[in-house]
This record gives sequence, structure tokens and C-alpha cells, in this order.
Amino acid sequence: MFIQNCWYVAAWDKEVPRDGLFARTVVNMPLVFGRDAAGKVFALQDRCCHRAAPLSKGRKEGEHIRCMYHGLLFDKSGQCIAVPAQERVPAALKVRSFPVVETHRWIWVWMGAPELADTALIPSTPWLDHPAWRALDGYVHYDTNYLLIADNLLDFSHLPYLHPTTLGGSPDYAAVLPHVERKERGIHLTKWVKNTEAPLYAAEYGGFKPGAKVDRWMFYEFLIPGVLLMDSGMTAAGHGDKDGFREKSLAFRGCQALTPETDNSTHYFFAHPHNFLIDRPDVTQSIHNGILTAFDEDREMITAQDRNLRLDPDFKMAVLSVDAAVGQFRRLVDRYIISETKPAN
Amino acid sequence: MFIQNCWYVAAWDKEVPRDGLFARTVVNMPLVFGRDAAGKVFALQDRCCHRAAPLSKGRKEGEHIRCMYHGLLFDKSGQCIAVPAQERVPAALKVRSFPVVETHRWIWVWMGAPELADTALIPSTPWLDHPAWRALDGYVHYDTNYLLIADNLLDFSHLPYLHPTTLGGSPDYAAVLPHVERKERGIHLTKWVKNTEAPLYAAEYGGFKPGAKVDRWMFYEFLIPGVLLMDSGMTAAGHGDKDGFREKSLAFRGCQALTPETDNSTHYFFAHPHNFLIDRPDVTQSIHNGILTAFDEDREMITAQDRNLRLDPDFKMAVLSVDAAVGQFRRLVDRYIISETKPAN
Amino acid sequence: MFIQNCWYVAAWDKEVPRDGLFARTVVNMPLVFGRDAAGKVFALQDRCCHRAAPLSKGRKEGEHIRCMYHGLLFDKSGQCIAVPAQERVPAALKVRSFPVVETHRWIWVWMGAPELADTALIPSTPWLDHPAWRALDGYVHYDTNYLLIADNLLDFSHLPYLHPTTLGGSPDYAAVLPHVERKERGIHLTKWVKNTEAPLYAAEYGGFKPGAKVDRWMFYEFLIPGVLLMDSGMTAAGHGDKDGFREKSLAFRGCQALTPETDNSTHYFFAHPHNFLIDRPDVTQSIHNGILTAFDEDREMITAQDRNLRLDPDFKMAVLSVDAAVGQFRRLVDRYIISETKPAN
Repeated sequence: MFIQNCWYVAAWDKEVPRDGLFARTVVNMPLVFGRDAAGKVFALQDRCCHRAAPLSKGRKEGEHIRCMYHGLLFDKSGQCIAVPAQERVPAALKVRSFPVVETHRWIWVWMGAPELADTALIPSTPWLDHPAWRALDGYVHYDTNYLLIADNLLDFSHLPYLHPTTLGGSPDYAAVLPHVERKERGIHLTKWVKNTEAPLYAAEYGGFKPGAKVDRWMFYEFLIPGVLLMDSGMTAAGHGDKDGFREKSLAFRGCQALTPETDNSTHYFFAHPHNFLIDRPDVTQSIHNGILTAFDEDREMITAQDRNLRLDPDFKMAVLSVDAAVGQFRRLVDRYIISETKPAN
Repeated sequence: MFIQNCWYVAAWDKEVPRDGLFARTVVNMPLVFGRDAAGKVFALQDRCCHRAAPLSKGRKEGEHIRCMYHGLLFDKSGQCIAVPAQERVPAALKVRSFPVVETHRWIWVWMGAPELADTALIPSTPWLDHPAWRALDGYVHYDTNYLLIADNLLDFSHLPYLHPTTLGGSPDYAAVLPHVERKERGIHLTKWVKNTEAPLYAAEYGGFKPGAKVDRWMFYEFLIPGVLLMDSGMTAAGHGDKDGFREKSLAFRGCQALTPETDNSTHYFFAHPHNFLIDRPDVTQSIHNGILTAFDEDREMITAQDRNLRLDPDFKMAVLSVDAAVGQFRRLVDRYIISETKPAN
Repeated sequence: MFIQNCWYVAAWDKEVPRDGLFARTVVNMPLVFGRDAAGKVFALQDRCCHRAAPLSKGRKEGEHIRCMYHGLLFDKSGQCIAVPAQERVPAALKVRSFPVVETHRWIWVWMGAPELADTALIPSTPWLDHPAWRALDGYVHYDTNYLLIADNLLDFSHLPYLHPTTLGGSPDYAAVLPHVERKERGIHLTKWVKNTEAPLYAAEYGGFKPGAKVDRWMFYEFLIPGVLLMDSGMTAAGHGDKDGFREKSLAFRGCQALTPETDNSTHYFFAHPHNFLIDRPDVTQSIHNGILTAFDEDREMITAQDRNLRLDPDFKMAVLSVDAAVGQFRRLVDRYIISETKPAN
């Protein structure tokens, strides 16, 4: 069961072609994406109302989609407008349409009641297309439920253990608990670790000497359904404070989004914009590769964790000090789901 | 749930060797086929009554089958006639036997009550071994229920959309609805499309000029459980009428049979005999290849359709003008299944 | 459902490294094995009590295991002794520990109540590390329940049918039923077949002429949960008697153990020690290869049998004369399982 009344990242903008169609399943719903004459994205259920053939195997005809099984023609609102061998097209012949917004490189889709689709609820990711920041587009696919990945992202105490040579962080870094605040639509975490060992990449990119001490910060929002906006970085030890840290610092604005594909699979969109050496594509590539390597480490562990949970679905997770944010987010998700299902009961 | 009291195509004749055994599962029942001394085919349940080992992994000993797990010997009626290390063979030691008939290249098996196995109910496919017709043996395997494929075969309006470059047919061809009659054991469709564009292959094989107009006919029976007998062809526009069309025409007698393997998989036997250029093996091969390519197009679409239906088993298909035969056949199947299950209730 | 209060073979000794960790699932329970400072093996549930990550993906730190997801540290008893970012470690933070014994090359684990773990119940396999015997370590994996393999091992009447060219045995060999005794923890079978044809390998290794007659014996115990200890061999016809057969004989002491991995998969450990030509590694290898080839024949048949049983879970096996031991062992297993589940009801 998933939250319906929220925006999910469905695709990178470039994935939906100018002409042609793009298929992606979101919260168990097969969707097809296309663009109208003006280039504006639309999203329909990817299932012809006739006999359930995927429209994404169909043909784009201008702004319309022709189902290539029996030739039904749909407009961009999902209304069937032509049926071979019959004059009249019943109004009931239509497929569901979904509110969709393309902004800052991501295509967001609203899976719930269309009249509730408030675009103000879309998390803002300006760093994905801002000229002062650079990143590469990331996507990985998981064969697990999205909540296990959300747990992972809500507890960075795993960094020194699972990612010792990639995302780094010394054990003293893990020992510092973030300040956790529960907000209306998510969890806000604030973490300052002062006078800690810089991660390996800092020496290369930021002029920090190996073993140099730094002040590291991490401010992040983790919003329903599973969007992580992370303001992180480091500066020389002693210079870190909330307002002055931009000088001589290495800063990132991580943008990540978990979108359930099915109950047991997840789309994971991410980018890790940086504000330094932005004229060096090799640096951008290297940062991206480092993230990818770390995400492979995550995926291997989470998939193994998932196997254990399938062997014993009754397993109760232990709650430790590091788990404050994990528990709060899970309760928030439950609360939204309950509020959505209540009217139907 | 499948119709039991009917003949299913189980194999091409050549698949069951003179000596040796052949295994195929039909409507969830594993079967083993062999031939007696006279070459006559017999069919037994492919599961030793001792410990369920497949007899098809056994050894043919004359007309008998030796289970090669523990050595039990069965005669062609399924009766166990020897057990190692014991003198007495209980009469209850036997495996089920099935009525089986080999005719016109196909081996038909009756899955229901043997006393109801009326050979007069076997659809006739003389074109498969008639000297005036040529075809190659076809078989494809589906990982979907057979009814989705029956739907496909009962509605040729999909030809111009799914098979634009193979089986062909212009949109005006799709726009002509067939005349549909429900018979006791199936659906009969009659379709004349006059003065329509010839498909691509007609120019090559029949001397029609590219773009030439033809009269096309298609008379076909679709019989339970899923046997299609199709009399189709084309002649020069203006010459098409039911009795006179054989002259200067390209004619086919398509023979196709859907046999459920399991609830979610299907055997598909087919051949497409033609009556022209029968001394040209390259033509026969080319026609066969064209069918195979089109069947791959079908299978890709139907498998995608099946995925959509699994995501939402409650999906109700819309009924269009083109679907008359589809709906009638599904109701016929339901009626047969209900009539078979009633006595047991 | 499996017997819990018994010793299962979990690994060959060499599989658990001096440093490092080894993962294996036994009766649906994921286990991690390590060695303490003295080299003694310990076994823990392979599932961190925090969030179910496998400890086997963790790091051995001396005698402890560090979970490499969030850094919890466990001692060899399964007690968590350190948690990052918190001072106090609740006593409840622990993973289950299992009694484990390493003896004669095999590592045995007790899956039931630890206080019942009586090491006297471990079957003895001295031939696996005795200087007068030689064998290679064997392991195969099955995708079936272990009981189908137990059935196979409890009825050697399948040898002449399934293994005509490997384990051999002429039909008269199969015709001799073993003497079967039910003991407290298993079945004991005694079989003498006198004046029978020697198997093919006998000529090569024992100086028997091809076609020579031999007296063959087979004394074996098949013990819960699925351990086969087999004293078998052959001597020249006329020389076989229980006490005098060691002279001029080819003797084997087969050691085999079936350990359920899950309901539908099994670990199969085996070795086939021989007492002749022990200074000829090529002979040892050849004997091992012969067993492996025969085990592949078994696995193919049993996997096919399993497919048939899945198609019809209600299938009732027929009971023949050769099945006395099979039936008795299945009843013994049922009796143990019932006795273990009774207190809980």
C-alpha cells in the first residue's frame, strides 16, 4: 500500500522523448508518458481500455496515441477518439490520465485524486539545472520495497561501516547523532560534526591535506513519498558554522527520489550536484562514480536484508538511538496512508 | 479450468518417434506418448504411480514403458505388468491412459471421460498432408493463458496495426466486420473485402502488381478448445465470389491449434498450406517465415497484455464492434466448462 | 516443517575459514559461522537484531563480528557488545546462538533447544579423516525438499535402473530386498547379494575379471535428520560372510548427509572413502567422479519427480515391497516432528 496523494518522480526529463512514448510503472500502475505539440508532458495509464494492451507499444500520432493492437486512438487526456470499424465512440472509452509536472529536470506524477494535485507540494530541486552546479543523471533499480531504502537514507550512521572507502566518514562521524525534527511532510535532520577527519575525496578536490581535520555539515529533508534533499559539505576545521560555511568549502546539494515501482521493486533517481571545479567534467564524473559505487554497496546490503525479512516476515526491528528519523518517517508514511484510506472505509 | 471433453492437439506426428518416448503437458496434465508395434500412438499420464517419476524419462521396451527410477514396467494401456522384487502386481498399479488419434499430421488427445471420446469431433485438416498443398510445421510456445491468444485469432481487425508489414492489410480491410455465426462447437466467420489493396506478398507470389486491388476472402471456423481452420485468399478485384474464386487466386488453408499447457502457458501448433508455387520450397519457407515473424509480433503484444492483466486481475475488457466473435467464443467456453462441472456439484 | 532437535551437517570443516565468516541457511534459518581465537567454530543467526542485515556480510574482529550495515558488534555468543552512538547496550540486543560441533571433517549444528544438544547423538564418520581411508569432499545442491532424496537413498532398488553404467548392479541385485530394522533414530538395512555380477569398476580396482561373480554387502544406517553411513563392498563369490569379508575385498564407507536449506532446497554433503589403492589419487578422483555422475542422474530424476508432485500435491505414492525402509523413515520423521510440536500446542 502506497501514499497516492503525492508527487512521485517518474523520470528524468530526457527519458520522455519529443516524439515517441515512454513506459514506467509507478506504485503498481503502468504509465505511458508522451509530449504534446508544445513539448508538455502528459501521462496516461499504460493499458488500453479495450483489452489491456500497453499503449506504450503503440504509435504516437501527433498529440495522440494509437494503440497498435486494434487501432484505438486516444488523445492526450486519455479519451478514446476513434475506433476502427465503428462510427460511434462511447464516452466511457478512455484511459486514466494523471497530473504531471516537469520541473528542474525531473518529471513528477500525482497518483491520487487529480483535484488534490497541488504543484506547491513538489519539492524544489533547482541545483539539477542551475549553471553554478554540476551533476550527472543517476538511476538505479532495486528489487526491494522502497521503505528499506528510505531507512538507509534516514540513518547516515551506516556511512563509516558500509561505505568506508567511498562516502567515507570516520567512526567518530557516525557517533554524532543528527538533530531530528518532524515536519508536516517529512523529517528534517541537521548534523554538524566538527574537527573530524576529511573523507578521501576532500584532499583531491578541496585542497585538504590527507588526514586534515574538517567541520562537516549535513542539513537534509526527507519528504514523503521518499525525496531526499541534502545540503552537505565541509570546510576547514574551525570555520564551520551555519551561516559562514560557504567560503572555501566543498558543497553538495544531493537530490534523490525513491519511487516505488511495485511492492517489491523501486526506482531510485539521484544526482549529486557540486559547486566546485564545475568546469572539470572529470571531477563531475568521478563524484558520480563514487556515488554509484556506494549505491551498489547499499543495494547489495539492502537486498540481502530483504532476503532475511522474506524468510521471517514477523521480524521486529530493534530501535537504537540512531533510528529516531527512521521510526518517525515510517510513522509519517503510515499516518498518510491511514488518512487516505479512511474515507473509503 | 479447462474443457476436458474435447480433442486437443498434443503434437506434430513426427514429434512422437517410432521408438522412444515423447513428453508434453496438456491442460496441466503431464503426458507421455509412444507408439505400439504397429506404429499406433498411445498416451499415458507421464507420472509413475509408484513415486511420480516421469515415465518419459524411462525406456521403451517393445510396446511397454519401463520406468527408469525403480524399474516398474507398464503396458500401453497404462497397466503395470511387472515390479522388481515382487511376484504379485496389484491391479491398482496403473497410470491413466488417454484416447489418442493421429490424423492429417496432428496427434489429438482427449482429456475427458474416455467413453465420450467421439472421433467425429476431431476437426479435419486434410491440407496438412494433401499433395496439392504445401506448408511447414510450426510451433511456438507462450507464457500466457490460451484465451488471450484465442481473442487475438478471433479478431483480425488487429492485422493492419500489429502486423503492418507482415500479414498486412490496409485500414479499410480492418474496417470491414466479418459476418459471425455461433455454431454448436465454435464460431464461424465470413469476411469478404472487395477492391482492397493487396498485401505485399501478393505481388511476389501471385503476379499482382504493387498497389493492385484485390478481392480478399476469409472463411474461418474457430472451434473449441482453440482450433482455427481458415480458408483465405485473394483474387483480382471484381472476380471474388464465393463459388468462383479458385481461378487465378492465391489460396491458403491455415490450420492452427491452441493447446493449454498450464494455466499460464500454451502450445501453439500451426501451418499455413498454400496451393500455388508448390514446387518452390523457397516460397513455402518464405510464407512460413512471414507467419513466424507475425506470430512473434502477436506474442510480444499478448505477453505485454498479460503483464497488465496480472497487475490488475479485475480489469474488465471493453466490448467493441470488432469483438462479437471474441465474446461469443468466451461464452461458449464458459458454457462447456459449466456443463462439465455440473455433474460433479 | 523440520525436526529441530537434531544435529545437521552445516559445512565441510574447510568451508569455515580461520579468519572470516561463512554463511549457510539450514532448515530455513540463515546462519553465519566463524572461529574463535582457538579455532573453535561458533554459529549465530545470520541476521542482525537491529535491521536484519546478514552478519555474514560483516567483518570478523578477533572473536567478534561487526555488522557492516550500522556497526553493531557481537561476541561469539551472539550478544551485542557495542552500538555506535550510544553508551548503553540493552541486554536484549542479541542474535540467537546455536550449538555447533566440528568432528571428523564435518561441522554439525543443533537447530533446536540448546539444552537438549547431546553430542553423543552425532553420527560418527571416522573414515573422513582416517589415514587408512581416502575420499574427496563432495557437495551438491538440490532444488527439492530433502525427503525425496531420502526416499532415493533408502531404496537402492533404483541402482540398476537409474545408474546402469555408474553405480551399476544387475537386475538380480535389485531383486534382493534388504533386511530392514527400525531403530530409535533411524533405519538399519542389511543386504547381502551373493554370487552376483561385479560392477564395472570392480575389474579395474579389485582385480576381478569382467563378468566375475562376487558377493556384495551393504550395511547401512539412515539416521534422522538424513545421515547415511554405509558400509559396503564386495569380495570374490563364496568368500562373503559378515565377519570374514575384509580380506581381498573392495570396501567403502560412504558418508552422506542431507540438510534441508529451505522447504524446497537441500544441501547434500557426501564422501565415499575407500580402503584400497589409497596411494593412488587418480583412483580416489575416479571413484569421486563416478559418484558425482550418478548423483547427477539422481538429481535429474528427483527434480523431474518433484515437478510432477508440484503439479498435483495430492498424489499418493504407491507402496511396493521395495519401499519398506522409505515408509518407515517417513513415519519416523513424522513422529519426531509431532513430538516436538506437541508441547507448543
